[in-house]
Amino acid sequence: MIRLNVDQNEFNKIISQFGEIGRKNGELWRSSYTPEEGDAKKFLRELMKENDIVPKEDSVGNLYGFPKTSKISADQKSIIIGSHIDTVRNAGILDGALGVLAGIIAVSSLIKQLGPPRKKLEIVGLIEEEGSRFHSGFLGSRAIVHGLTQADLSEQDCNNISIAEAMSDSGYDPIKVAEAKRNDIDAYLEMHIEQGPILELNQKNIGIVETITGFMMLNVEIHGEENHAGTTPMEARKDALVAASEVIRMIPETVRKISSTARATVGMIRVCPGSTNVVPGKTQFSIDIRDTVENGIEKIKGEIVALLEKTKSMGFTFSIEEVVFELPISLDSDLIETLDTVCQQQGVSAMKMNSGAGHDAQFFAERFPSALLFIPSQKGISHSPQEYSNPEDIFLGTRILAEMIKKLAW
Amino acid sequence: MIRLNVDQNEFNKIISQFGEIGRKNGELWRSSYTPEEGDAKKFLRELMKENDIVPKEDSVGNLYGFPKTSKISADQKSIIIGSHIDTVRNAGILDGALGVLAGIIAVSSLIKQLGPPRKKLEIVGLIEEEGSRFHSGFLGSRAIVHGLTQADLSEQDCNNISIAEAMSDSGYDPIKVAEAKRNDIDAYLEMHIEQGPILELNQKNIGIVETITGFMMLNVEIHGEENHAGTTPMEARKDALVAASEVIRMIPETVRKISSTARATVGMIRVCPGSTNVVPGKTQFSIDIRDTVENGIEKIKGEIVALLEKTKSMGFTFSIEEVVFELPISLDSDLIETLDTVCQQQGVSAMKMNSGAGHDAQFFAERFPSALLFIPSQKGISHSPQEYSNPEDIFLGTRILAEMIKKLAW
Repeated sequence: MIRLNVDQNEFNKIISQFGEIGRKNGELWRSSYTPEEGDAKKFLRELMKENDIVPKEDSVGNLYGFPKTSKISADQKSIIIGSHIDTVRNAGILDGALGVLAGIIAVSSLIKQLGPPRKKLEIVGLIEEEGSRFHSGFLGSRAIVHGLTQADLSEQDCNNISIAEAMSDSGYDPIKVAEAKRNDIDAYLEMHIEQGPILELNQKNIGIVETITGFMMLNVEIHGEENHAGTTPMEARKDALVAASEVIRMIPETVRKISSTARATVGMIRVCPGSTNVVPGKTQFSIDIRDTVENGIEKIKGEIVALLEKTKSMGFTFSIEEVVFELPISLDSDLIETLDTVCQQQGVSAMKMNSGAGHDAQFFAERFPSALLFIPSQKGISHSPQEYSNPEDIFLGTRILAEMIKKLAW
Repeated sequence: MIRLNVDQNEFNKIISQFGEIGRKNGELWRSSYTPEEGDAKKFLRELMKENDIVPKEDSVGNLYGFPKTSKISADQKSIIIGSHIDTVRNAGILDGALGVLAGIIAVSSLIKQLGPPRKKLEIVGLIEEEGSRFHSGFLGSRAIVHGLTQADLSEQDCNNISIAEAMSDSGYDPIKVAEAKRNDIDAYLEMHIEQGPILELNQKNIGIVETITGFMMLNVEIHGEENHAGTTPMEARKDALVAASEVIRMIPETVRKISSTARATVGMIRVCPGSTNVVPGKTQFSIDIRDTVENGIEKIKGEIVALLEKTKSMGFTFSIEEVVFELPISLDSDLIETLDTVCQQQGVSAMKMNSGAGHDAQFFAERFPSALLFIPSQKGISHSPQEYSNPEDIFLGTRILAEMIKKLAW
């Protein structure tokens, strides 16, 4: 297997250093068009330069890296290796960052040992995948794959700053966002932590993603009757939280009955007025439904609506808003087989699997052959400071990524 | 029945005018040690003066009114008639205010028609019953009945302003709070809206309160495991909101089994981290338990703990904090019988009942004979702009209050 320019400890150190960028009072958060993002890019530019890679940003702020050795005709399409540089709030250090750092190390190691590739290679550090500042997320990959419009830039963060304003404040020209769109992509390769427990449970070192989950976000409101908690007899109440509880507790069972690959989660709930001494008149909650099978999501939505309908007989009313519905997307079957072959040839235990999380690769896959490679996440935890992958798995994954690039570009 | 100095329309107008004090952008909120409270006292002082009542504040800001006609020896104890002048946020215009305004009208009408009373009478407008600024509430009545200590004044509002600071800012001297305590009280009479549906359901005009509910406030936390909503299989989750839902949905049934007079309410719930795409690792919620029977509350707490214990078998842990536990308190049986007699003599339909809400009368009742008189609340709604009592009921209630005072003081 290919040797990397750095050993396991050195690579770990790079990851840890990068994981300090955007940390305040112990909490890591790198969101887009912020000084933290600027610092992260500065770190990446220096790491690229040390590895003979020329950094260059596009018009929205995605940071590309072009290996210096390329002697390839300008009209050749590129194989792009990368992931995102932003994080959720109170994040771990691997989600996103690992794919960018591994790309730099893998490509530079290959070039050092094998000389110039026959294919054009690029690294990319994408902005705002998580949506922790601008909720729609995937800003960098959408800009590259589909192009952003001026309308897209009107989305606001929680301080009512639009993407356009945030861009201007950070020195980007919002008028030029469309320039980030590309057609010259031969393949997109992304390495990422699994963020789930499947690889660990199956004791595999590499996950080869076949399908990235479809995703539906619902906002639900149940309306009951607001009343005084002390004076309203139990039988005279229409408690909107009790009604919501009846629905929420049934969701796991409902999902399990419909599809073994599906998940549904109520991650946000709010009662109105939210006073300890008032019977809730209204409950609002989100439902995040995912499945790699398209009609799985719609079936689950149907069953949840049926659960909500039941509350009507008790005098409640409800509304349900479909905020997002993205179909599941399959990654490139040729790249999947190549990756599988690489793992077999290297004697690394791998499994084909689906991704329950969204990834930049899902947008690239809409127009370009794309592959997504997972390494195990301890206990499946991510979006948390407890996020952890063991250094052997990180290092092995990076070497497999390098082997994959070698197979495609040398 | 005694005629009042004002007719129904005039009294309504006074109530409406007072209900505009503290209204901003349509929302009524009079909290303590604020300009709104100052405006409310100014209104009351003028109304008192028009009715030959001399206003005077005590050291914490309770506004007393002393009828000018008193020719009574200084050492005689007082019959105090009143309620509170503060409101919850987004309040109706009757809760508290009615008892103060009715007291002024009733006492002044009696004196005008019957001459000087043989007992010393006072009106009181109490501060901060609701706890909408300083959560412990009942500040005015506690100051009078038990006295406030410097330690009591350290409680902070949501802007971290302590009671002591708020007092100073409004021109009260926090050093002098103990001076508000009184021993010279013969009786406390309070008229209040019911804030519940009992009188309306029973088609009665007057409620004579026998017992004010006991009250327990619990803060519960259920701990599960925070995980990614897309990647964590349903069977691998410990969703703290699903666990909380199993408990919350069972509360109404549990309460009904134990005591017909009890109520329990989850009015506040919060999940952590509270992101739509994260399986809740922690759920925090309040439980407001009330009963007029003391061991009712403790039995309900016991059953709720048993419900929480059940979640342990599914891998959850929980904590439960008893924030407040106040025993139910009985009002003075002689005053109850007097009030009942008054209603019978006047041919007004009344019923003895319990109060599910807390009232200033519960603190007075700890040391002095106290009575609490309810008038019907439409649909039982209060703590809401929809709070409404019909003008006939308000007027009739005030006349019954006057008859009661007549019986005690003439």
